[in-house]
Amino acid sequence: MERIRKNVQEMSGYVPGEQPRNPDVIKLNTNENPYPATASIQELLAEISPEQLAKYPDPVCGELRTLLAERHGVGSARILVGNGSDEILALCLRAFVERDGVVGYFDPSYSLYPVLARIEGVRVKPVDLAEGFQWAMPEDYQASLFYLTYPNAPTGIAYDRERIRSFCGRFEGVVLIDEAYVDFAEMDCMDLAREYDNVLVARTFSKSYSLAGIRLGYVVGPSELIGALYKVKDSYNVSMLTQRIGLAALRDEACMRANVKKVVATRDRIIRELRARAFEVTESQANFLWVRPTKGSAESLFSQLKSRNIYIRYFPGPKTGEWLRISIGTDAQMDALLRMVDELTAIG
Amino acid sequence: MERIRKNVQEMSGYVPGEQPRNPDVIKLNTNENPYPATASIQELLAEISPEQLAKYPDPVCGELRTLLAERHGVGSARILVGNGSDEILALCLRAFVERDGVVGYFDPSYSLYPVLARIEGVRVKPVDLAEGFQWAMPEDYQASLFYLTYPNAPTGIAYDRERIRSFCGRFEGVVLIDEAYVDFAEMDCMDLAREYDNVLVARTFSKSYSLAGIRLGYVVGPSELIGALYKVKDSYNVSMLTQRIGLAALRDEACMRANVKKVVATRDRIIRELRARAFEVTESQANFLWVRPTKGSAESLFSQLKSRNIYIRYFPGPKTGEWLRISIGTDAQMDALLRMVDELTAIG
Repeated sequence: MERIRKNVQEMSGYVPGEQPRNPDVIKLNTNENPYPATASIQELLAEISPEQLAKYPDPVCGELRTLLAERHGVGSARILVGNGSDEILALCLRAFVERDGVVGYFDPSYSLYPVLARIEGVRVKPVDLAEGFQWAMPEDYQASLFYLTYPNAPTGIAYDRERIRSFCGRFEGVVLIDEAYVDFAEMDCMDLAREYDNVLVARTFSKSYSLAGIRLGYVVGPSELIGALYKVKDSYNVSMLTQRIGLAALRDEACMRANVKKVVATRDRIIRELRARAFEVTESQANFLWVRPTKGSAESLFSQLKSRNIYIRYFPGPKTGEWLRISIGTDAQMDALLRMVDELTAIG
Repeated sequence: MERIRKNVQEMSGYVPGEQPRNPDVIKLNTNENPYPATASIQELLAEISPEQLAKYPDPVCGELRTLLAERHGVGSARILVGNGSDEILALCLRAFVERDGVVGYFDPSYSLYPVLARIEGVRVKPVDLAEGFQWAMPEDYQASLFYLTYPNAPTGIAYDRERIRSFCGRFEGVVLIDEAYVDFAEMDCMDLAREYDNVLVARTFSKSYSLAGIRLGYVVGPSELIGALYKVKDSYNVSMLTQRIGLAALRDEACMRANVKKVVATRDRIIRELRARAFEVTESQANFLWVRPTKGSAESLFSQLKSRNIYIRYFPGPKTGEWLRISIGTDAQMDALLRMVDELTAIG
C-alpha cells in the first residue's frame, strides 16, 4: 500500500527564496521591506504577558476585520484574514476548484500557483504572457479559478485595469486578484472585488507593511465566496500576536505610506541606473525590479553576486532564465549592488 | 457555473468552542491552561524590534526542530512544525489520502477530523468506541489514515498502549497519534513514531505549554512521511514570534511540568468531588473531564451554567449528548463551578 499520495510523491515542493541568517548578506531576494513597521509594535509587545497567550486567539479576527472593512468600504462579512496571503491562495483552491476543475495563472507569475494546484491534484491551464510580459488573455479562456497577480510578480508590470475589468466580467470562474505588491503601484483593483460576484482581492502585510515575519494577509470579496473560504480554513489560523500587530500597523498607515514612498523613489532611481548600464528593465510598479543583463548571463551574474554576499533571485526556465529579480533595499544597499555590478562588468 | 465546490457548499464548517471576551466568564470550554507559560517570554517580547519582523521567518523552523529533535531523540528531518497541530492534522489528509481513500477515527473523538475529511471530499470510516468509551478496533479495519487521539478527547481516556502498538503494527495506512493532551497523561506513544514506518505523533503547545494564542504544534515520525508533509505545507507557515516563543517555552520545561502538576492535582480532586455529587466521570488523563449528570440533562446544565457565566462544552449527538466536557481551571474556578452545580441541584 502506497502511503503517500501519488501526486505528492511526484511533485517537488515550492522553493522559497533563501533566508540566510548571516547579517553581512545584502538580502534582495524575497521582496521584504527595508524599512521597519510602526514603532508602536514595540510598545504593544512590551505589554504582552504570558497569561494573554494561554487563550486561543479570535478564530475570525473580528477587530482586524472591522478596521479592514472600514478601510475598504465593505462589510466585515466580506473579509477573511489568513496566515499570510499564501494561506488564502491555498484556501481558494480548496473552496473553488472541483477535482476535475482547472486552475489558471499567467506564465510567468508567482511560482507558488502551480505548486498549490499540484498539491490538490488539479489540472493547470497557464496563459502565456505576450512579448515583454504584457497582458495576453485568449477571448474564450475559462477555468475554475484564475490567479491574477496585480502588479505581476516577478515582472512588476501592472496590467491595464480596463482589460482586467472586462476579463472579470466575462470569466465564469473565480478571479483571485493577488495584490501582494499593490501598495507600491499607482492603482489597485479593490473596486472589482466590491462590484463583481466572482472577484476576490488578496492583500498581505509582508511587503508594504514590513511585516513578513508575522504572517498576515487578507482577502476581500463577495460574502458568498468569502463564506466558503471560512468553511475550509483552519479554525484558529492567525495567532493572537499577529492579530494585535496587524491592528497596530493598520492604525499607523502613515508609517507604511512613508516607507512605500522611499522604496518607490529608490526603485525609480535604480531603474534609471540599471538601464544606463545596459540592462533591460521592465516598468515595475512593485518593490522589486525585473532585469535582463544584455551582456553575460543572468545565472552567472546571480551566482557572482551571491558569492559576494548580495542575494537576488534567479528563476531558471525558458521564460525567466534570462532575467533576474532584485528586491528594492535601502539606497545604501542598492548602491552597493550597483558598485558590485560595475566591478563584475569591469572584470568581464 | 457553480463557483463553490459541491462538498464545500454542502458542509458546515468546524465550530470551535466560544471565545468570549468578557473577563467575568469562567472559561472551562476550550481546554486552555489556567497557569501562564514561562515568564521568559515577556523578556523575549520586550526585545523584539519592528526591524526583526520585516524579514520572512525560517520556513522550516530550524532552531525549534533542533531542540525538539534532542528532546525526542530523533533527527530533525523527522520533525515538522505547524501553525498549531490543527494544521498538521489537515496536512496529513493532503499528503496521505488519495481522493478515493478513506479516513478513520474513533467516534467520539476530536470533532475536527470529519470536517477535515469533508473539506478534502474524502470518505470517512469512523470506528465506534465500546461501552464506556473504551478501545474497540475491528481486527480487519483498514483506512488510508487513522487519527488516533491519545489520550482521547472529549473522553480523556488513554487507551492501553499495547493495543495501540499492535494496531500500528498491522494497520496498512498512516496512523497519526494526536497527543494534544499527552503531557497530562501517565504515558505517551512517542516510541511508536520512532519504531514504525507508518506512525506519526503530533503535539501542541496549546495545552500543557499554555500557549494556545501563538499557534504552535509539531509532528514526529519517519522521515519519508515527514518529507511528504513538507511538500504540502504553506512555505512560511509559522510566524517568527511563534518560533521564538516556542523556543523559550521548550527551554523552560520545568515551568510546563509545574503547571501540569497543578492541573493534574486539581483534575483528580474534581473527579472525586463530582463523583460524590452523582456525576458519572471517566478516568481522564487529560486537562479536562468528561462527565454525565445522572440527574437532569447535560444540555440544560450546560445552558444554566452558561447563563451564569461558567462556560463548559456540550457536544450534541447520540454518542455525546448526555455528557459534558469541563476543562480544568484553577482551583478557585473549579470550586466556583462546584458551588454553582450545588446551587442548581438544590433548585432542582
